[in-house]
Amino acid sequence: MNGLMQKFPLNLAYILEHAARFHSQQEIVSQTIEGGMHRYTYADALVRTKKLANFLKDYGLEQGDRVATLAWNGYRHLESWFAISGYGAICTTVNPRLFPEQISYILTHSKSRILLVDITFVPLLEKIQHELVHLEQVIILTDREHMPDHTIDGALCYEDVLAATEEDAFDWPVLDEETGASLCYTSGTTGDPKGVMYTHRSNLLMSAMTIGPDVFNLSSMTTMLVVVPMFHANAWGVVYAGPMVGAKLVLPGPHLDGKSIYEIIEREEITSSLAVPTVWTGLLEYLQKNHLTLPLMKEVIIGGSAVSKSMVKAFQQDYGIEVIHGWGMTELNPLGTANRPIAAQRHFTEEERLDYSLKQGRPLFGVEMCIQDDEGRHLPHDGKSAGRLMVRGPWVVAKYYRQETEILDQDGWFDTGDIATLDDYGFMQITDRAKDIIKSGGEWISSIDLENSAMSHPRIQLAAIIGIPHPKWEERPLLIVQNNGDKTPEEAEIMDYLSSRVAKWWLPDAICFVDSIPLAASGKIDKKALRKEFQDFTLPII
Amino acid sequence: MNGLMQKFPLNLAYILEHAARFHSQQEIVSQTIEGGMHRYTYADALVRTKKLANFLKDYGLEQGDRVATLAWNGYRHLESWFAISGYGAICTTVNPRLFPEQISYILTHSKSRILLVDITFVPLLEKIQHELVHLEQVIILTDREHMPDHTIDGALCYEDVLAATEEDAFDWPVLDEETGASLCYTSGTTGDPKGVMYTHRSNLLMSAMTIGPDVFNLSSMTTMLVVVPMFHANAWGVVYAGPMVGAKLVLPGPHLDGKSIYEIIEREEITSSLAVPTVWTGLLEYLQKNHLTLPLMKEVIIGGSAVSKSMVKAFQQDYGIEVIHGWGMTELNPLGTANRPIAAQRHFTEEERLDYSLKQGRPLFGVEMCIQDDEGRHLPHDGKSAGRLMVRGPWVVAKYYRQETEILDQDGWFDTGDIATLDDYGFMQITDRAKDIIKSGGEWISSIDLENSAMSHPRIQLAAIIGIPHPKWEERPLLIVQNNGDKTPEEAEIMDYLSSRVAKWWLPDAICFVDSIPLAASGKIDKKALRKEFQDFTLPII
Repeated sequence: MNGLMQKFPLNLAYILEHAARFHSQQEIVSQTIEGGMHRYTYADALVRTKKLANFLKDYGLEQGDRVATLAWNGYRHLESWFAISGYGAICTTVNPRLFPEQISYILTHSKSRILLVDITFVPLLEKIQHELVHLEQVIILTDREHMPDHTIDGALCYEDVLAATEEDAFDWPVLDEETGASLCYTSGTTGDPKGVMYTHRSNLLMSAMTIGPDVFNLSSMTTMLVVVPMFHANAWGVVYAGPMVGAKLVLPGPHLDGKSIYEIIEREEITSSLAVPTVWTGLLEYLQKNHLTLPLMKEVIIGGSAVSKSMVKAFQQDYGIEVIHGWGMTELNPLGTANRPIAAQRHFTEEERLDYSLKQGRPLFGVEMCIQDDEGRHLPHDGKSAGRLMVRGPWVVAKYYRQETEILDQDGWFDTGDIATLDDYGFMQITDRAKDIIKSGGEWISSIDLENSAMSHPRIQLAAIIGIPHPKWEERPLLIVQNNGDKTPEEAEIMDYLSSRVAKWWLPDAICFVDSIPLAASGKIDKKALRKEFQDFTLPII
Repeated sequence: MNGLMQKFPLNLAYILEHAARFHSQQEIVSQTIEGGMHRYTYADALVRTKKLANFLKDYGLEQGDRVATLAWNGYRHLESWFAISGYGAICTTVNPRLFPEQISYILTHSKSRILLVDITFVPLLEKIQHELVHLEQVIILTDREHMPDHTIDGALCYEDVLAATEEDAFDWPVLDEETGASLCYTSGTTGDPKGVMYTHRSNLLMSAMTIGPDVFNLSSMTTMLVVVPMFHANAWGVVYAGPMVGAKLVLPGPHLDGKSIYEIIEREEITSSLAVPTVWTGLLEYLQKNHLTLPLMKEVIIGGSAVSKSMVKAFQQDYGIEVIHGWGMTELNPLGTANRPIAAQRHFTEEERLDYSLKQGRPLFGVEMCIQDDEGRHLPHDGKSAGRLMVRGPWVVAKYYRQETEILDQDGWFDTGDIATLDDYGFMQITDRAKDIIKSGGEWISSIDLENSAMSHPRIQLAAIIGIPHPKWEERPLLIVQNNGDKTPEEAEIMDYLSSRVAKWWLPDAICFVDSIPLAASGKIDKKALRKEFQDFTLPII
């Protein structure tokens, strides 16, 4: 029997409408690329967003068409997001940190008709423009005064486009909530990037579920520095969640070094911020070097890769700032878990609490999560059993864009490619990437744990573990250590060091020393390259 | 273009599944009617809920059938909610405070096949049982030991039902999210109660949007005393929102007097609670009389009727407890607004802040809200213009159950029947009920404001304002004052008192003194009766 409540599809344009009506005076502040800060309100943002939507209409854009952005976090990028998806088109965010050929691939694969680009990336675009066979129109996100010299045919200036659009009013179409809203490509190191097409529904639900005090803790009192890029993984949805509650959003533009981040936190009285660990490392170094504090900052939300204990300690003990560890991925819109304290932790020692904060946290309501062994059997939530981390729910990918391959199992689970444990409090912890784990005699050895143990040696800078085929055990770990000149420890010393840190059967069967461990574009160790390099390596049979 | 995320309907059963999996050890604590506290975990609750669902299956219940509850807040009631809606049937919550004929009407109008009833209400049920032509089966929510003597044919004992159901497992059907989940009747004083059929979607979305720090501020650290009844207006959704985040729920059973509420707050270390003002008055009186404090309690959420300044002051200044004023109605699933401080209030004086806390607050994200004049023109958000409060959105009623009448205007707005202002910070304040407002010469006079002004006179106990037809002004206010023995002030004194408090043209044209102002079942002034009593009253032409 159908209920009798209003049929009201979840549409993203409504988020900005809500903010403009009920938080009309709240600010969006942007560090501009041209220099200086730009400030305006949600009400202002809506007016300009509607102008852009009118431009898209006048241009003849069809619903479902793709419009790409290649831009830093800033107000024009925010307007683009809402105008494109509100119009019923698909906002394809392109990550400028990818290789030019990957950027070219994404723009071509998505068949983006229009591209909105920051002045920073005009030279990059010039280099690849001849390859972009579907691209019809480039709009440079700046004003007339700052338009760069360029070779891009017919490129328009964003502020000219808005100024030329007289119509302020725009009636957002009412879209089925399963309509595509944005298209985000993975930045995996293997193969071509894969597109995940978020829906109005998935964006809105995911963002709404980050508002609570156990996730991002967003209110109209929050001043949120959005360091996580809008060009990748949806900026963790905070560009949607912020206006839902009328939070002040601060968009930091291109400068993400410790000094720039410190200065914007101070100037804008930031209370909370989202970023990956490398940004926080830069900030912490700057604070320490200059003996600075951040008295108004209450919490930092960290994801993208695992947080170290020393980072948690520094924030919490030295600066009185709470660390919220999160986990997500492009395929998950992107947030899956967040780690906030639970009542049971009251009885933990400080050290136990610190260890616990390194877990990735509990699933958001809306994310179903389980761990499975290689045969698809569910593993217990005991904090010890490690298995493939599987997810499903209204903001989990069903299929990649323009790929026919089925990516869900028969029960609808998506395999994240991570190996994780789940404990009896519902906390998830990633122990490895599935493709990196070493399968030894039916048991799993975590490459991450082994690498971290090796790198905790004071004279080892960089270390990598890969699995080498073994006649008896299937696979055994090989430790690769980067030479550190005279300081490089001897093999025996390393083995001795590891023996006291990991189980005996985890100890690597061999250690190789190399001049340089290859890194991928993301800055992570390029294990694909290492595996190729060591494909003919034979383990000594112990 | 459709996006490519998983199609995952929002189903209520999933809420309890989530809590049982990821907050398995969190408690639900209930004050039982039989005496003593009952404690168990979300994991326990799920097992028993599935047993009840299996009973419904064995009984032969069809999806869409109505199953009613007549019960206090307690764990068995909670299990009933989740089992019935999870099964795909409709949980009809019946308010035992209504007149027996209204209860009988609701059970008959909803054609409820099964009724789950607390022992408290068995005598009431015995009186009306012969009228309940659709009711097939009564289940008394107790164990064998506490089964009362009764005359209800074939009534079962709840714990016997669960004990007899061996099957623990139950595969929840996957329901379209627009499926009806619960049916709640209005308790209006005029006409028969009207049924609002909430959907899985509306219940889930509304509840999810209460989690944020600007609304109920719910986390796994929250211990929430749910005083608002599960038998009316959906307990403000907190029975759903609590398990979404793993909050500890405390269900207080039948005793809601100041002493009982104080004791349960102390014993269970309550941090937050939801209730109507009368409950809080009782608690405050008990605290004051006994010189008690509530050191762990952080906030009280108050709705149902407007909060007085003295109550806000008492909580905030005497006990250090934040007051969150909310507004909702059965037709709104039920929550529409919540009042939490905004950044701009930092510059307010203490008195301004206090006044501001009396507003009903900002709309939750998901509730569209506007004020309109009698011609349907939108009025400005200036904090002064008062108009009909109109709402629409995914948890606003579309139609009443088994009524064909259209209740939305051509733009989909539902008229709440309230008169309100909206200010430039997005805060709504109710100034009157539409049917009570006095329309004088094209302007509106708020009966609530006039009544409050009169009742602020130290010797006036009870006062009511009704409109009397007027040849020139259309309507003018008549003030009706309840006699207070010797203390009753003279007419001239009252007029003088009011002159310094309201605009001159608001002053009542006449004052009548009566022995007793009639009250409706809800405890509010029965204006319908007053209007009838004074229908022939003629105003002196001034």
